[in-house]
Amino acid sequence: MSSTFGKIFKIHTYGESHGVGLGVVIDGCPAGVNIDEDAIAYQLERRKPGQSKIVTQRKESEKFEVLSGVFDDKSTGTPISLMIKNDGQRSKDYDHLKKVYRPSHADFTYQEKYGIRDYRGGGRSSARETVARVMAGSIAAQYLQQVSDIKVYSYVSSVGDLTLDKGYQDLDFSKIDDHPTRCPDAEMAEKMYELIDGVRKNGDTIGGTITGVITGVPVGLGEPVFDKLHAELGKAMLSINAVKGFEYGSGFEGAKMRGSSHNDVFEADENGNLITKTNHSGGIQGGISNGADIYFKVAFKPVATIMRDQESVDADGNEIAVKGKGRHDPCVLPRAVPIVDAMSNLVMADFFLRNKISKV
Amino acid sequence: MSSTFGKIFKIHTYGESHGVGLGVVIDGCPAGVNIDEDAIAYQLERRKPGQSKIVTQRKESEKFEVLSGVFDDKSTGTPISLMIKNDGQRSKDYDHLKKVYRPSHADFTYQEKYGIRDYRGGGRSSARETVARVMAGSIAAQYLQQVSDIKVYSYVSSVGDLTLDKGYQDLDFSKIDDHPTRCPDAEMAEKMYELIDGVRKNGDTIGGTITGVITGVPVGLGEPVFDKLHAELGKAMLSINAVKGFEYGSGFEGAKMRGSSHNDVFEADENGNLITKTNHSGGIQGGISNGADIYFKVAFKPVATIMRDQESVDADGNEIAVKGKGRHDPCVLPRAVPIVDAMSNLVMADFFLRNKISKV
Amino acid sequence: MSSTFGKIFKIHTYGESHGVGLGVVIDGCPAGVNIDEDAIAYQLERRKPGQSKIVTQRKESEKFEVLSGVFDDKSTGTPISLMIKNDGQRSKDYDHLKKVYRPSHADFTYQEKYGIRDYRGGGRSSARETVARVMAGSIAAQYLQQVSDIKVYSYVSSVGDLTLDKGYQDLDFSKIDDHPTRCPDAEMAEKMYELIDGVRKNGDTIGGTITGVITGVPVGLGEPVFDKLHAELGKAMLSINAVKGFEYGSGFEGAKMRGSSHNDVFEADENGNLITKTNHSGGIQGGISNGADIYFKVAFKPVATIMRDQESVDADGNEIAVKGKGRHDPCVLPRAVPIVDAMSNLVMADFFLRNKISKV
Amino acid sequence: MSSTFGKIFKIHTYGESHGVGLGVVIDGCPAGVNIDEDAIAYQLERRKPGQSKIVTQRKESEKFEVLSGVFDDKSTGTPISLMIKNDGQRSKDYDHLKKVYRPSHADFTYQEKYGIRDYRGGGRSSARETVARVMAGSIAAQYLQQVSDIKVYSYVSSVGDLTLDKGYQDLDFSKIDDHPTRCPDAEMAEKMYELIDGVRKNGDTIGGTITGVITGVPVGLGEPVFDKLHAELGKAMLSINAVKGFEYGSGFEGAKMRGSSHNDVFEADENGNLITKTNHSGGIQGGISNGADIYFKVAFKPVATIMRDQESVDADGNEIAVKGKGRHDPCVLPRAVPIVDAMSNLVMADFFLRNKISKV
Repeated sequence: MSSTFGKIFKIHTYGESHGVGLGVVIDGCPAGVNIDEDAIAYQLERRKPGQSKIVTQRKESEKFEVLSGVFDDKSTGTPISLMIKNDGQRSKDYDHLKKVYRPSHADFTYQEKYGIRDYRGGGRSSARETVARVMAGSIAAQYLQQVSDIKVYSYVSSVGDLTLDKGYQDLDFSKIDDHPTRCPDAEMAEKMYELIDGVRKNGDTIGGTITGVITGVPVGLGEPVFDKLHAELGKAMLSINAVKGFEYGSGFEGAKMRGSSHNDVFEADENGNLITKTNHSGGIQGGISNGADIYFKVAFKPVATIMRDQESVDADGNEIAVKGKGRHDPCVLPRAVPIVDAMSNLVMADFFLRNKISKV
Repeated sequence: MSSTFGKIFKIHTYGESHGVGLGVVIDGCPAGVNIDEDAIAYQLERRKPGQSKIVTQRKESEKFEVLSGVFDDKSTGTPISLMIKNDGQRSKDYDHLKKVYRPSHADFTYQEKYGIRDYRGGGRSSARETVARVMAGSIAAQYLQQVSDIKVYSYVSSVGDLTLDKGYQDLDFSKIDDHPTRCPDAEMAEKMYELIDGVRKNGDTIGGTITGVITGVPVGLGEPVFDKLHAELGKAMLSINAVKGFEYGSGFEGAKMRGSSHNDVFEADENGNLITKTNHSGGIQGGISNGADIYFKVAFKPVATIMRDQESVDADGNEIAVKGKGRHDPCVLPRAVPIVDAMSNLVMADFFLRNKISKV
Repeated sequence: MSSTFGKIFKIHTYGESHGVGLGVVIDGCPAGVNIDEDAIAYQLERRKPGQSKIVTQRKESEKFEVLSGVFDDKSTGTPISLMIKNDGQRSKDYDHLKKVYRPSHADFTYQEKYGIRDYRGGGRSSARETVARVMAGSIAAQYLQQVSDIKVYSYVSSVGDLTLDKGYQDLDFSKIDDHPTRCPDAEMAEKMYELIDGVRKNGDTIGGTITGVITGVPVGLGEPVFDKLHAELGKAMLSINAVKGFEYGSGFEGAKMRGSSHNDVFEADENGNLITKTNHSGGIQGGISNGADIYFKVAFKPVATIMRDQESVDADGNEIAVKGKGRHDPCVLPRAVPIVDAMSNLVMADFFLRNKISKV
Repeated sequence: MSSTFGKIFKIHTYGESHGVGLGVVIDGCPAGVNIDEDAIAYQLERRKPGQSKIVTQRKESEKFEVLSGVFDDKSTGTPISLMIKNDGQRSKDYDHLKKVYRPSHADFTYQEKYGIRDYRGGGRSSARETVARVMAGSIAAQYLQQVSDIKVYSYVSSVGDLTLDKGYQDLDFSKIDDHPTRCPDAEMAEKMYELIDGVRKNGDTIGGTITGVITGVPVGLGEPVFDKLHAELGKAMLSINAVKGFEYGSGFEGAKMRGSSHNDVFEADENGNLITKTNHSGGIQGGISNGADIYFKVAFKPVATIMRDQESVDADGNEIAVKGKGRHDPCVLPRAVPIVDAMSNLVMADFFLRNKISKV
């Protein structure tokens, strides 16, 4: 009862990392959107393993099929079903995990909650689930591109203790994909790369943050009270595997400030439109977009699977050592960038549609 | 379309700060819960204005009425309707705001989104809306108390630059309400009080953080993928007025760590139950509770209404000065504690019920 | 978890017949609708007891209050809360029912389902709940009137064996309220009146049908697959107390026909718009409105409360006689007409809004 | 936004008759249900074309694949995805329909609503969509069988003017599948067969009714107010292609009766359980099951596609003749029986789960 996201631009995902396949049904994409399959494939490429030495070398199929909802390259208003069959899985890598609960993984909680679990590759709890989000997010992005100026960006802004000290305004988003780390600042990107590579050689993993930016947002997106724009963005990001925190605008730093310096004072721009002089609000006031850039930061913990032996306890309570096997990411951040993008696009498409029915 | 929260223990809120009244309809509270109206009143007392010198001195009615759903002091399984009529509002305080957009308030975004707004006291965007959450949260807490060991706490953990450096384990939660700041550490509480009072005298406001803790959680609450327990908690907190960030477990600090030190290693307790040696996971793994304490931190910005003149622009684009009038909080934190509690209780009641239908 | 109706124009109702009050929260009414309280009062008048000798003589308050969501006589886009406090209830009339299950009432099923029930006047199962629907339906009607040509009508088309043999096209809907039976055909209305009055004097009750008609419907309302326009209308009507059946267009008679005579052949009208020569489809094809009139029929059983002794069994299984006490309707049809109207308006408002987001 | 059915046992369907494939994602099936793929295949067999001379001779693939949610032949609590790839479609049969609106089909309404339609075989409006319902319904049935005594039956009770005059109690449900008509009364079945075959030879089609029966229902399923058990059953049935009406219990006949003869008087059975002497209520009182058999009737119109030329108008308003081409059902009833079963099972599984959270 939990694999649905969105109120109007709704997505329903399914699939396990080592099952037959994974996919998504989008119910709520308006009719008449031009659907470009290459654009979907491009986002899947950004997420896929093996892009560089600092991400997992697993082989995974990213070959998707559009099963429904598109005719003559346009959405028809009926559910759009996108599916990827698994291929190249090495399920035997996971036989040793049948009765073992890996530390800081979902093995234990799934087993206790459901009384059964697909232990191969984490099953439903695997980040492989995010291929569904990326496919759906690409459709959302294509919709937004065709009806609005909304554009979504994200990039790696810190790895471990290395933090990019430039604001998003001082970065060139066109360079995000230029470096395997997906940090658009070349110098910092190189440092991050070295750090991750060192961690990798050490059989360890490392966390970091991704900064998201949304530009071209019309005034009025987001809903009062529970479905505030930033609350839904927060939920979207927190629902991504390994995420531990979310802040937008001034965020946790804003909690240290005084109102007199935090308030964003209004002024009129050259066209007489109201804008704010500063943007501590992160483009959202009272849960509703005010036209300024939306920006936020997402914290990712270090990947739980490390290439070292860890103490643990098996399902029967016996002490065991969990072996670090398989092909895993030393740092999830570079491959998480398209996932953050996808979730941003899904949230924005949903609120864009919700706003169409907010007044007579 | 946004005043509903929860999937099974659902609440629907309504009301404006200067309208006729505010309230909540709870649809999904199981039959047979003993309903104690005094417990509801107690939580409203914790939220109400005028508790001390460092909160707003506004007069607001907290007199609620149970309109339905309770018979012989028990829930009947039908919707529970709770309502408070407004009283003591001084709407004239707001006449000057008809054409004025207060900085960092929702005036501008509501007006643009809806083409109309109730400008008196912020209307629906006012934090007065949270009386509905507090009432419903109390019912959720009563339900949880009668069917589980789940207990919810929260306290002020920082104000401005003053940060409590003790962990939640080193605090005595029974002292939270002992001090007007709702910081359970007497020494820090006093410092916070002085800080807030100084800010108040200066006509300014200040932000801070609240730490939430949930104990006695059974293993298995929370859902995979989108409705992860922490994602829903995050959305709940981010939906509270003035919140800018949410983190749980290791949070943003965890993003700096390595897997080898971040992972929570399992061990068996004296009863053979699996527990973890550390709790960077914050009691949640894969979106599902693992039985350990859940803890999280919520960042609040400084209140936007300050007792100083601020530059702004009116609805017609003319430059004006916004006067700081009325009776407002210099720091929202002490009164936000019961609201954080309410949202925690609502989330936990909802997931407790959802878990009842997760397996055969 | 079941007092919500609608997907976008959503209503949440609450209240018991002998509790403190009843009401509805409308979440999803667009901003900018002119709200006329007199129009709401008018619909409540049509539903209220004591209109004539052939309906119940109970005293009930219909005095409602708008608690939120309306400012300067316009909807603001925030939840509209409407409430009626009970008054004039004679709860003592029901003391004898504490341990008694009235035949064909909901007493037994509520008690078994919830383990508790408000036995006074049927509690939540009472048709008094429909005041909430009528209030919300009036708001929906006002919205539709301001944005479309959609008009909703209904009238009593049969009582017992007396069936109006004219089609809806041959009736003058302006006469519906001219007669206490709400049958717009004066001659048949008089016969129905006599029949109901005779049944009443006999301490008995009688069933009948209401025909609903919706005109001015644009092409395109309704959704494919599960939320077909007629499926949602059907659910709406079947959710009204005492309803046993629903058919639209050719209905059960259509099931006897052959395709060659049932099919509605297209032709172009004078403006070149496509219309159908016949309307067995009842204005809906594939679940979506085709611009022709929508018409349907709703079957109501005879009211279960009769003014005679009935055998029954109490909660402990003892044989007892249920006394017919209180003030009840010999025939629910005349007062059900505004309820059918309300449900039609709610369904149409919801689908009108849903259609706004169906294509780019 | 309309391909979802159910509140807890939720299904999401997708697919077009001549697209790549069709399928369903079940989100809300509890973990631990034994899943028998043969049982699913068996229900698909009952629905498939070519079973006899009186149904369509189209070739359609019914080969399904389970993509997710099942592990070691048990449901895991994660979404169950079932998919069928299309095969054997003769899309060229439909080329002539690109600009043509078939009478009483959804061609016109889809085109107007969405501005685009997949005209091949009706696209999403085709009854081929019901393969998804049948697959999901089988999973629901398997769940119900493993946790309750609930059993669902349906059979053809009339074709055209031929009506089975026996009540469901006098029929042997084990004989439903014995005859191609799916009428369990051998004599009437034969008459129906002759009637349908004659209609078929005549290039025409004919309607009829299906009676549904649900036995072994515990007391307490169904929800008050809008989600009454019969209202949801009604919506479920009305959402099936070609359905024009729904009645339960006494239905439209009950509308002619008086309360004194319609009321179902209680008595105690040998075990002291309360039962009713009669069952005009159709097993449902106040929207909630009372333990008696649930029974209802569903009216199907004659199939719109006839093997004759029909006048119509094309998309440009030109008069044309629609040719009856392709392979179609002269009577949809026999193949609709498993679809009615599927919808009954889906509704019952959903309410069974909803009832688990109705009291403490």
